[in-house]
Amino acid sequence: MREESFLKKSGLKDKVVVSGKIAKLEKVEKGGDKESPYVSVVLLGGINEIGKNMTVIEYGDDMFIIDCGLMFPDMDMPGVDVVIPDFSYVVKKKHKLRGVVLTHGHEDHIGALSYFLKNVNVPVYGTQLTISLVKAKLKEAGILRTANLNVKRAGDRIRLGCFLVTLIHVNHSIPDACALAVSTPIGVLFHTGDYKVDFTPIEGSAIDLSELGELGRRGVLLLLADSTNAEKPGFSPSEQVVGSSFERLFKSATDKRILVATFASNVHRIQQVITTAEEHNRKVAVSGRGMVNVIAIAIELGYLKPNPGTMIDIDEANKCPPGQIVIVTTGSQGEPLSALRRISNKEHKKIEVSQNDFIIISAQPIPGNEKFVNRVINDLMLLGADVVYEKMHDTHVSGHAYQDEQKLFINLLQPKYFVPVHGEYRHLKKNAKIARLMGLNPDNILVPELGREILVGRQEIKYGKVVPSGNVMVDGLGVGDVGSVVLRERKLLSGDGLIVVIVVMEKDFMNVLAGPDIISRGFVYVRESEELIERARGLVKEVLKDCKVKNVKDWGNMKNRIKEKLSEFFYKKTQRSPMILPIIEEVSVGATD
Amino acid sequence: MREESFLKKSGLKDKVVVSGKIAKLEKVEKGGDKESPYVSVVLLGGINEIGKNMTVIEYGDDMFIIDCGLMFPDMDMPGVDVVIPDFSYVVKKKHKLRGVVLTHGHEDHIGALSYFLKNVNVPVYGTQLTISLVKAKLKEAGILRTANLNVKRAGDRIRLGCFLVTLIHVNHSIPDACALAVSTPIGVLFHTGDYKVDFTPIEGSAIDLSELGELGRRGVLLLLADSTNAEKPGFSPSEQVVGSSFERLFKSATDKRILVATFASNVHRIQQVITTAEEHNRKVAVSGRGMVNVIAIAIELGYLKPNPGTMIDIDEANKCPPGQIVIVTTGSQGEPLSALRRISNKEHKKIEVSQNDFIIISAQPIPGNEKFVNRVINDLMLLGADVVYEKMHDTHVSGHAYQDEQKLFINLLQPKYFVPVHGEYRHLKKNAKIARLMGLNPDNILVPELGREILVGRQEIKYGKVVPSGNVMVDGLGVGDVGSVVLRERKLLSGDGLIVVIVVMEKDFMNVLAGPDIISRGFVYVRESEELIERARGLVKEVLKDCKVKNVKDWGNMKNRIKEKLSEFFYKKTQRSPMILPIIEEVSVGATD
Repeated sequence: MREESFLKKSGLKDKVVVSGKIAKLEKVEKGGDKESPYVSVVLLGGINEIGKNMTVIEYGDDMFIIDCGLMFPDMDMPGVDVVIPDFSYVVKKKHKLRGVVLTHGHEDHIGALSYFLKNVNVPVYGTQLTISLVKAKLKEAGILRTANLNVKRAGDRIRLGCFLVTLIHVNHSIPDACALAVSTPIGVLFHTGDYKVDFTPIEGSAIDLSELGELGRRGVLLLLADSTNAEKPGFSPSEQVVGSSFERLFKSATDKRILVATFASNVHRIQQVITTAEEHNRKVAVSGRGMVNVIAIAIELGYLKPNPGTMIDIDEANKCPPGQIVIVTTGSQGEPLSALRRISNKEHKKIEVSQNDFIIISAQPIPGNEKFVNRVINDLMLLGADVVYEKMHDTHVSGHAYQDEQKLFINLLQPKYFVPVHGEYRHLKKNAKIARLMGLNPDNILVPELGREILVGRQEIKYGKVVPSGNVMVDGLGVGDVGSVVLRERKLLSGDGLIVVIVVMEKDFMNVLAGPDIISRGFVYVRESEELIERARGLVKEVLKDCKVKNVKDWGNMKNRIKEKLSEFFYKKTQRSPMILPIIEEVSVGATD
Repeated sequence: MREESFLKKSGLKDKVVVSGKIAKLEKVEKGGDKESPYVSVVLLGGINEIGKNMTVIEYGDDMFIIDCGLMFPDMDMPGVDVVIPDFSYVVKKKHKLRGVVLTHGHEDHIGALSYFLKNVNVPVYGTQLTISLVKAKLKEAGILRTANLNVKRAGDRIRLGCFLVTLIHVNHSIPDACALAVSTPIGVLFHTGDYKVDFTPIEGSAIDLSELGELGRRGVLLLLADSTNAEKPGFSPSEQVVGSSFERLFKSATDKRILVATFASNVHRIQQVITTAEEHNRKVAVSGRGMVNVIAIAIELGYLKPNPGTMIDIDEANKCPPGQIVIVTTGSQGEPLSALRRISNKEHKKIEVSQNDFIIISAQPIPGNEKFVNRVINDLMLLGADVVYEKMHDTHVSGHAYQDEQKLFINLLQPKYFVPVHGEYRHLKKNAKIARLMGLNPDNILVPELGREILVGRQEIKYGKVVPSGNVMVDGLGVGDVGSVVLRERKLLSGDGLIVVIVVMEKDFMNVLAGPDIISRGFVYVRESEELIERARGLVKEVLKDCKVKNVKDWGNMKNRIKEKLSEFFYKKTQRSPMILPIIEEVSVGATD
């Protein structure tokens, strides 16, 4: 019975016959290349990085994509807004592309979709919350009207050419997250998406491990597994743990106003704040545009269930006694423009913090954000607030599986092949080690490389060709126009600033008509460095004179001489290396001749 | 007997008579203002920050300084090399200044000394290793010859006007660290410096707690206490713990080459590497200029005691089998120019890493460095090396007291007043809380502010005047010439780059003789944006025409119009806001008239 029901649910019923652990193909799907012994898996993101997840699955004439996420820029990408995958490989093959399947609604899984759909408008599939979050993004990008969005539920099957994709409910730090069982002509690939095992989740049901067990019994060829927490031993704590902490902390805050900062998308967390607030007769107000949007969507769709009257406006909240209020806010990462950062800076229009506030930071700093978070905490404390942020208060749990959950998945799914994904190299390597420890044949474990095809066959898994991949930087409206040259210039400019040298020369002659003038920015404080600049001008004059004497008329050459002279001079005087930009304008003083 | 010996040692003997817990004054020292009831304590660094520690103690006509450290620049100080305290307050009162006492040789305690001594050349006191490290710095700054450096030992007393300072041995992550007991005309101030309690240190003796107990019995007026680890419960682990880890890890590395990355100044740690290497018949080579220098000094002074023949040259090491070698290197923070970073980048001239390497990172990332460290770890693993960095391997212990050590100090010293120092605001506040929990009168606990004087009297402690303080940025040879204007320009330039517009105009007339020309840097990739730049040129031409029509002859006005027009245009087209720098050069075409 269960087998029957599973087969029905997974859609594998009349396509595969189980033999040993590997699903075998009875009939090859339409359009499939009957000869090809391999499914191609290409990872365009999420490998050796946390972010911009995008996986391409291809067989014969069919191709589909799992997720299409963004990454936030690194410290060595000044001025860049977001980073998206180089998906030129997919665009080139767009005639084969049957659709995009989204595992869940986090930015690193859906954030590049608006850029992608502008290139290739294919059907998009995802669960209710995921698609709602996508809608908001596509609307902002002005392409909602033309987009082909399809809401699916866990258990639903999606036909994509020769592939049949089944959505499988998993627990994560956002509701409605899914793993994917991908039935292909040569066997089943299982992609975990982002997952954890939470036996007592806040909303929705626990992950159904029996379903995974059944899948494992029928045969999983390849497991693509989330590696984020591969370094963490044991089992990740349930989201419920945070609820108990909230209960304890709310009790201790008595008549203070409570602020809770967390991720806007962590609907479970926000539900726990609301529940605890209601138990303590507090109303809940929301601050931060992202938070307001997500909460509105989540309430509308029924993922958040506040009692009538619990949610109030921030202006209304400001009229209540502090002991009756909770404010949920963004800024748990100390992001410069977030609500909490502005509150800590006294730049928030509606929220002022004092010793009457009790602030809970319900998140952990993402690597690279530690200093931002530290600064916010210190600034809030300087305003007199109590701030709770330490690990010992259990105000956060991770949404990603720890080692024992990873082992559990391998045990249940019994994959022939194992490919760790979604992690820095250290995480991928550790996850591969876990698979080895679980008894998988080392030859069947492949640590993937970004943009390097993985060929999955019935008898072997191996690397294939290398396809274009990498970071495409988005800065304002420009996608990909900020490259290494522009970044190098920005870094140079930010390091020691800029010197512009302007000379106006007579055309065809070597007479200086105006200048040399020197303008600096970001180099030295000019009012205190007049002498330095004056001496630099003198040097440029010498160079020009020298050029005249030596009859150097090539202006490229002259510019180089100016550059060299000034570089040397400024370095000697200041030990700084500003960018030096010599400009020679030529004027023809026609009437004089 | 013990009391007698302590009094002799501390030099307090004939100066104070104990009455209750507060040392009372019998005779006021020479130069002291007999009327003043307060000692002034001003903290010029180390408050609400980790770094640039500098404390000014003043009474009557006498003043001295404890430490003179630097801080590494924050992410919002692009191009800045180091940050030093604003010590103009001290320079202004230099006639009163009797000297600088250094607690230990870390950069955040000695790094600003070369800048300070260039302003005020006063005697400097410190222990052997501290002064040796200072010497190296002053030599580099070219002021060693004129400096007045004095080597003292723990137990020594230093007379500084009306103050008598006793050096007291403490444990820390560098040898030869001291706390200071400062006898003043109104009582004893105790400054912990950076400390931990290590009952089984690697080198030198454990901290002598009985000495502190005796001091406490005689009366300590004020305790200035290191707050770095005030959030960590319990007792910090002994440095010996790391030795046991090394033993275990060296065993597991068998015939691989071992690299250990740690702080150059952590001589204890390096001794443990050497000892473990010798036990495993490995030779030790050193990489990284800072590391080579410190190790040379430490061996010379006897703080490091390798067996003869243990230390070898890196070239020699490269000729040995990997299983016989340990390389000690800098770069445990992933610093861009460090040896380990260059190794991980394959940019190191002498060290190449492969699967034959076992790398131990014996440090924890300082907040803000996490991403650097992550990158190094991932890159080393990508080269095939084993990398050990997780907490569970116990490859690092902190050099700063945890909560229970802080309590121990308060219990032993029984200060009347308590001022937490050396920490971010959250650490200071937590340390103040610890003092309250220990039973100190809350009125006697003061959380200090940077540059705000603390007046320490016999009956009260209170805030006094506010003196100039803050960050002085050092960039190359410039000290303090990078201010907020320059930083703002650098940030602006790094964000969206630069547009230079050049026009050559006829003097007194509105004729354009050359240009407008547009040059961009760090904005867009020019070759792909010719049309954009061309349209911008057109706009500038329009502005110039418009000015001519409207008879706008003020070039400031014209520049503003160009700026506004282009800002709007570029933002609309790219959603970027580059710095726009319009330059108008005027040429008088004399002969034409």
